[in-house]
Amino acid sequence: MADTPKASRRPRAETPRGFRDYFGAEVTERKAMLDRIAEVYHRYGFDPLETSAVETVEALGKFLPDVDRPNEGVFGWQEENTGSGGDWLALRYDLTAPLARVAAQYRNDLPTPYRRYAMGPVWRNEKPGPGRFRQFYQCDADTVGASSVAADAEICAMLADALEAVGIERGDYVVKVNNRKVLNGVLEVACIADDDVRTRGIVLRAIDKIDRLGPEGVRALLGKGRKDESGDITEGAGLDHGAIAMMLAFAMPDAARSGFVMQDERGQNLDLSLREILHLSQVGKEGLDELDEIIRLVRAQGYDEDRIRMDTSVVRGLGYYTGPVYEAELTFEILDEKGRKRQFGSVAGGGRYDDLVKRFTGQAVPATGVSIGVDRLLAALHAKGRAGSATPGPVVVTVMDRDRMADYMAMVGALRQAGIRAEMYLGNPKNFGNQLKYADKRGSPIAVIQGANEAARGVVILKDLILGARISAGASLEEWKSRPAQVEIPLADLVPATRRMLEP
Amino acid sequence: MADTPKASRRPRAETPRGFRDYFGAEVTERKAMLDRIAEVYHRYGFDPLETSAVETVEALGKFLPDVDRPNEGVFGWQEENTGSGGDWLALRYDLTAPLARVAAQYRNDLPTPYRRYAMGPVWRNEKPGPGRFRQFYQCDADTVGASSVAADAEICAMLADALEAVGIERGDYVVKVNNRKVLNGVLEVACIADDDVRTRGIVLRAIDKIDRLGPEGVRALLGKGRKDESGDITEGAGLDHGAIAMMLAFAMPDAARSGFVMQDERGQNLDLSLREILHLSQVGKEGLDELDEIIRLVRAQGYDEDRIRMDTSVVRGLGYYTGPVYEAELTFEILDEKGRKRQFGSVAGGGRYDDLVKRFTGQAVPATGVSIGVDRLLAALHAKGRAGSATPGPVVVTVMDRDRMADYMAMVGALRQAGIRAEMYLGNPKNFGNQLKYADKRGSPIAVIQGANEAARGVVILKDLILGARISAGASLEEWKSRPAQVEIPLADLVPATRRMLEP
Repeated sequence: MADTPKASRRPRAETPRGFRDYFGAEVTERKAMLDRIAEVYHRYGFDPLETSAVETVEALGKFLPDVDRPNEGVFGWQEENTGSGGDWLALRYDLTAPLARVAAQYRNDLPTPYRRYAMGPVWRNEKPGPGRFRQFYQCDADTVGASSVAADAEICAMLADALEAVGIERGDYVVKVNNRKVLNGVLEVACIADDDVRTRGIVLRAIDKIDRLGPEGVRALLGKGRKDESGDITEGAGLDHGAIAMMLAFAMPDAARSGFVMQDERGQNLDLSLREILHLSQVGKEGLDELDEIIRLVRAQGYDEDRIRMDTSVVRGLGYYTGPVYEAELTFEILDEKGRKRQFGSVAGGGRYDDLVKRFTGQAVPATGVSIGVDRLLAALHAKGRAGSATPGPVVVTVMDRDRMADYMAMVGALRQAGIRAEMYLGNPKNFGNQLKYADKRGSPIAVIQGANEAARGVVILKDLILGARISAGASLEEWKSRPAQVEIPLADLVPATRRMLEP
Repeated sequence: MADTPKASRRPRAETPRGFRDYFGAEVTERKAMLDRIAEVYHRYGFDPLETSAVETVEALGKFLPDVDRPNEGVFGWQEENTGSGGDWLALRYDLTAPLARVAAQYRNDLPTPYRRYAMGPVWRNEKPGPGRFRQFYQCDADTVGASSVAADAEICAMLADALEAVGIERGDYVVKVNNRKVLNGVLEVACIADDDVRTRGIVLRAIDKIDRLGPEGVRALLGKGRKDESGDITEGAGLDHGAIAMMLAFAMPDAARSGFVMQDERGQNLDLSLREILHLSQVGKEGLDELDEIIRLVRAQGYDEDRIRMDTSVVRGLGYYTGPVYEAELTFEILDEKGRKRQFGSVAGGGRYDDLVKRFTGQAVPATGVSIGVDRLLAALHAKGRAGSATPGPVVVTVMDRDRMADYMAMVGALRQAGIRAEMYLGNPKNFGNQLKYADKRGSPIAVIQGANEAARGVVILKDLILGARISAGASLEEWKSRPAQVEIPLADLVPATRRMLEP
């Protein structure tokens, strides 16, 4: 039961728990990045799609139809309705589920294949943490209706182009490609049954952790289980030594490109070629052929190993992938919160999910796509100093004489008409120091000043706030005017003189 | 109670009631329009702000704290929580309420005055109708912390500039300015008490309807009430004849600029000068002075009567306005759904609301701002043929030979690297007609074709799909190749030859 609000109590001025506001450059930098990505997606023939934030819980899927809490993990509510109860609605938790709905709903109108991109916020009803918010941006591109792995190859190439377009230089990123069928092949050879969902789940999660736990940690998880530093025990998959060795070969980065030698528990060398192993399994062989074809297609377009490569350690968490999976990693180092060097890591990922549209129509529709982690990529651009310089503040026309507002407004108007970002000071003009403090806070490059004296002579003063020293809040107008970085100009020269002073 | 879903039933592929999807040009045209408006806002010194879609119901305000249905009018839900119940959250219903919350929450960090713009979707839990959706875009600019009417004048000028920036020509729009204090002055002179909320409400709504009902309809609403065509009776304000005459003088467009002569019920002429009436009321005189000052300030910047003018018929529905109100009207005619000519009408409006931040802090904070109706403005641009041409479709590289995918992909890659929008056909290539149908559906300007014969000779065929006639679905490759608008070029010339064909 909600507390009964008291009429006298003031509302709290707070964002809800786990939500945040974005100001100024935070908005424009993200927008600039997304605009550049959209340009690349457009060039590749992808069309924008914008679905509403709200979907029926039924269409979103994934969430179990628990009548008491059908909105586990999402923000949901029930439509008001007379009679038997309205639909359950919810905020979308990603951009893929709405795409699957759209692909089914408009299947007779959309081109086949349908290439679309989408950018926008998604919402997760999860416990917020530091730097972890319940609303965040996603930026996706998907191709629906193409079974050819040429569609996957295209998305890998596009992902590389998108990263370069926003300012990640060649050599600072790599797109790694794998295939779920390769993993399934290894699992088959290791005699883990198709329907042994529990074991397969443990294996998948273990492999996904190799960066964090290292080979020995993963070996433990594949075998009897693992005790972590706090003493907690994670259940293991219970594989035998041969299977563990195979799985590890699969999980080690770049294992596919060279034979991988490792020791089993008894110290004997196991010389494993992943290719040899995979040829023991029909699905494994198929997965390897698809991977080879993807690599061949991107190479034909000039994407070499420095940009796109096969890597069987890429697993991608989501259960719905059915074929190729891919991931973009940034390879440059940053310092983590404890000052240790580490690779920046993954900023985008995706893969083939051939069964999502089938939920609606009963017909399998092949689909593949990528999602860029907008906040992580923006953080990477900041780390590389590539997030775009902060927008310059406006020229501030100060108000020396309250009765001549129309004159100041005319100056501002002239500057704006000339395309120069400008403002008149709109606060209480009595304290001139406050006007300068305001200009400072706004990052203003120039203050325009015209007192009665200047007005009588038909001139204005331009004060270069970037060249000039920081203005102390208490400085008198006289002290301030004596500083070097200011010029007196005829009012008629306001626009050209301002433009000259703004030149870098 | 929700129905218990059956495991076997497929989910419906439908947008929720009252929501819709936006495809391709619908997305890019809106984005282009908003980008141009943002440029103007930026030039005026406004900074972007992006708040989350979700607010606490408490912060949103306006909605009565009915414990059973605190979400009347909004989409709301209660946070899960242990104990006494979590906060009620809701999707924002406009961009002003979140701004008031932000202005209170960050009052020590933001510059004063704080100029901000915001663009994004808002949500209304209302009954949807034709063309009326429960999610739609708003595009706002507000100045918080400036009591001077120079802030209102600035927003009127900015609104005019924004309309011209998106393609509404001078002469096709007018920004009309009024002042709530003028209305309050007239009400005071008419002896309608400050606290007679009911009568004031009826009067406000009556005046707001003058375009639709005409003077006689409004006269009835101000007096004894009005019976509409269906026989329904709307209660009247019960004013006497003198008061009605004054109100009508106020409500008639442009009344302020000239004396307004009208007859009372007994046929006697009432020669009313609105200025004379308003000088009988302190608040009315103040309102008129503010209006005169706003007009003076915009004139000083070169905005003449053809762009910004005083008009006392502008009321603006929202109850929270406390001073100047303004509205942008498009003055060109369109045909309504019944084929009758009518003025396009209002596309933006706003005003001064000095009490919204006070809810949070107890301190009055002056604020003024405008909201542009994004969908209506976009419709206006469409009506004027100014919504921007539809994005051209991609060049489509067809697949004649499934074994040479890498060659086709290399062609697509070369085109894309050259900045040309291009695709390889990713569907099943067996039926060539389907590839041409696809290119047609995509609005593709050029199809690139290379069969075994062409490959052997190192050439490709470029088919100009815009020049060429519509391609019939069943045409054989031979028929199709015989058409005039196609050229055979060396493969090495693919990029320059495509570029030449794309030139207008």
